[in-house]
Amino acid sequence: MRLPHDEPIAVPGFRFAGLHCGIKASGAPDLALVLSTLPATAAAVSTRNVVRAAPVLLLEERLRAGRHRLSAVLVNSGNANACTGAAGRKVAERTTAALAARLETPRTRVVPVSTGVIGEPLPPEPILDALERLIDAARPEGAMDFAEAIRTTDAGPKVAVASARLGPRRTARVMGIAKGAGMIHPRLATTLAFVLTDAPVRTAWWRAALRRAAASSFALATVDGDTSTNDVLLALASGAEGGTVVDERSPRAARALERSLAEVLERLARMVVADGEGAERLVRVEVRGLATERAARRVAERIATSLLVKTALHGCDPNWGRILAAAGAAGVPFDPERATLRIGDATVLRRGRPAGGQALEEAASAMRHTEYAIVLTLGRGPGRAHYWTCDLGPAYVRLNAEYHT
Amino acid sequence: MRLPHDEPIAVPGFRFAGLHCGIKASGAPDLALVLSTLPATAAAVSTRNVVRAAPVLLLEERLRAGRHRLSAVLVNSGNANACTGAAGRKVAERTTAALAARLETPRTRVVPVSTGVIGEPLPPEPILDALERLIDAARPEGAMDFAEAIRTTDAGPKVAVASARLGPRRTARVMGIAKGAGMIHPRLATTLAFVLTDAPVRTAWWRAALRRAAASSFALATVDGDTSTNDVLLALASGAEGGTVVDERSPRAARALERSLAEVLERLARMVVADGEGAERLVRVEVRGLATERAARRVAERIATSLLVKTALHGCDPNWGRILAAAGAAGVPFDPERATLRIGDATVLRRGRPAGGQALEEAASAMRHTEYAIVLTLGRGPGRAHYWTCDLGPAYVRLNAEYHT
Repeated sequence: MRLPHDEPIAVPGFRFAGLHCGIKASGAPDLALVLSTLPATAAAVSTRNVVRAAPVLLLEERLRAGRHRLSAVLVNSGNANACTGAAGRKVAERTTAALAARLETPRTRVVPVSTGVIGEPLPPEPILDALERLIDAARPEGAMDFAEAIRTTDAGPKVAVASARLGPRRTARVMGIAKGAGMIHPRLATTLAFVLTDAPVRTAWWRAALRRAAASSFALATVDGDTSTNDVLLALASGAEGGTVVDERSPRAARALERSLAEVLERLARMVVADGEGAERLVRVEVRGLATERAARRVAERIATSLLVKTALHGCDPNWGRILAAAGAAGVPFDPERATLRIGDATVLRRGRPAGGQALEEAASAMRHTEYAIVLTLGRGPGRAHYWTCDLGPAYVRLNAEYHT
Repeated sequence: MRLPHDEPIAVPGFRFAGLHCGIKASGAPDLALVLSTLPATAAAVSTRNVVRAAPVLLLEERLRAGRHRLSAVLVNSGNANACTGAAGRKVAERTTAALAARLETPRTRVVPVSTGVIGEPLPPEPILDALERLIDAARPEGAMDFAEAIRTTDAGPKVAVASARLGPRRTARVMGIAKGAGMIHPRLATTLAFVLTDAPVRTAWWRAALRRAAASSFALATVDGDTSTNDVLLALASGAEGGTVVDERSPRAARALERSLAEVLERLARMVVADGEGAERLVRVEVRGLATERAARRVAERIATSLLVKTALHGCDPNWGRILAAAGAAGVPFDPERATLRIGDATVLRRGRPAGGQALEEAASAMRHTEYAIVLTLGRGPGRAHYWTCDLGPAYVRLNAEYHT
């Protein structure tokens, strides 16, 4: 985790908690809470999987019913409450209704989020029994507890903070907290991620800004090509900053806030991919020179998800043939004789011609870094796009072959 | 390899050879030849990758130029002659031209096929120097030598034979030889596979029959979701059987021959998946009850290529949640509450309800077999489809992280 030392891990208007309630057998934290002192303006992007967990459906219903105002988000890890039928739905309703009652806020202002094993019944009792303790534990500086409690197979908590200059004397904070290490792939979806700001925002603009920021961050991140039943990216704005409302009519403030939002999301997305199960390296795959951005994105996605490329990344093998073969499988026409490929600073293929020994050695040593870029240029078109991926090592397989139902 | 004991591994009209010429540093066989005494009627299906190796392009050109008549197929393993530019093209032309000259046959009747590492120059000398020895070695019963010499990371040679009753006193042989263990995924493409029959066939019908047989076999087989630059499925009919030409105007003979062709291809495709790099199990993923076959195929493909499903297969973990989540990511709408899932003979999910302990134990023990089926029923529609896949173990990753350029 990379946190700037000069930024407090807090956002005015929000309190956080995380604790163990009894879902995870290990005793690790498994229940987390965000409270907003005043109802926060909420925007969400959620999984497009046809199989969607009960909490995801309930969250979307409540956002609509409550006009995108939220007072609390109740998150559990260790159980996804997915494929759990009517009973699972009741658990999500009951636990959030109990929290709403204690907070004396309408139910529509409290939403559930779950992550963990699919298809196991989620017992409501441990959550219900822990609610009072959870509310009592909530504090402005509790973000790390929250980040710890939403983890599943993550190696560590994921938090990113930034500031946005809304005007000459106005600064807003933006903080993001995410989890995720496996089942990461963009289909307008993300892993679990929460973004909080004290800026006051207009709902419609906030929702559009979140969609754009997700498209340039989590939508370009892949670990294993699988999409989850529970992915939610939720952005809350408390308004505690106290200035005039930010939207497209205040272009400077809107740009500044959206830039910080996008920056925080990109940093979280990169942390998620870098922490890909069993992964040792974060790789930026960039494709240039195609006719459109869309075509470039298709090629970048194909490279970023190719098992043969990802295993070569793990072996620090500058196997440009596999990269070119994966590019060719995207269904986007290009002339391999014009392809130029750079790995780190080494050009291993120049207009279709292999550069040979020296360049391959340089590429192999670039590939031993924990983060580097691969740039594939396929022509002179304006279309370019990138993707974040990671290497695939035996640890991914071991972890997922052993992570039992 | 499963070969019926009563079938000779030979097809009238063809001779085969395989030997080491010097491409593979290991000294293993790396050069193979099929000779047809009379020009055989040829049909081919080849990779749809945008990046196509020189031999694939030359093979297609020569089939067209020579009106689909072939006298010889020259195969090398250990080097794909892909991404090798104009020099690679010259090597493919020169080696096959030299073979044609020795055989005193037009160049258009000799085609090259290559498989192995991408992006390495293929030296022509070892091939040219070995041609005479190769021709001398060719014999009717040499199919196993051929099968050995086309291997790359295969655990063993892959041969399948069948008979086709073309009429009351007419029987044709069909023999298939394949290689492949990684980079296996259908995009109207296959790994390398050769099918030989002594039946006389009409070209147009033979080509159509091959396309159909490929669609129901190799097009439903996946190991790692990657498509190769070199995949070719080539079918040769020598006509040595001597009867009247088989085509749609002789429906009984045509049906019998096509059935044997499809059977041989399916057996080869299953062998290829079962021999998937690092794989221990062959799994048939069947999806039923959707509106169309196409929709069912999309869902089956998504399940068959999901890393989380394939690692669960490796761990013998009846993780039905991952299977359902992968199905949901195919973009085909269905109601998870109506989903029924069978693993082996155990129904682990019945109309959206988990069956629990006993069924899971039965499923886990079915998953320890080397071959079993997963059947997911998603409704009452007529659309059904299947896919062949394998488990993904750490050995896949080790092999591919270490198989260097």
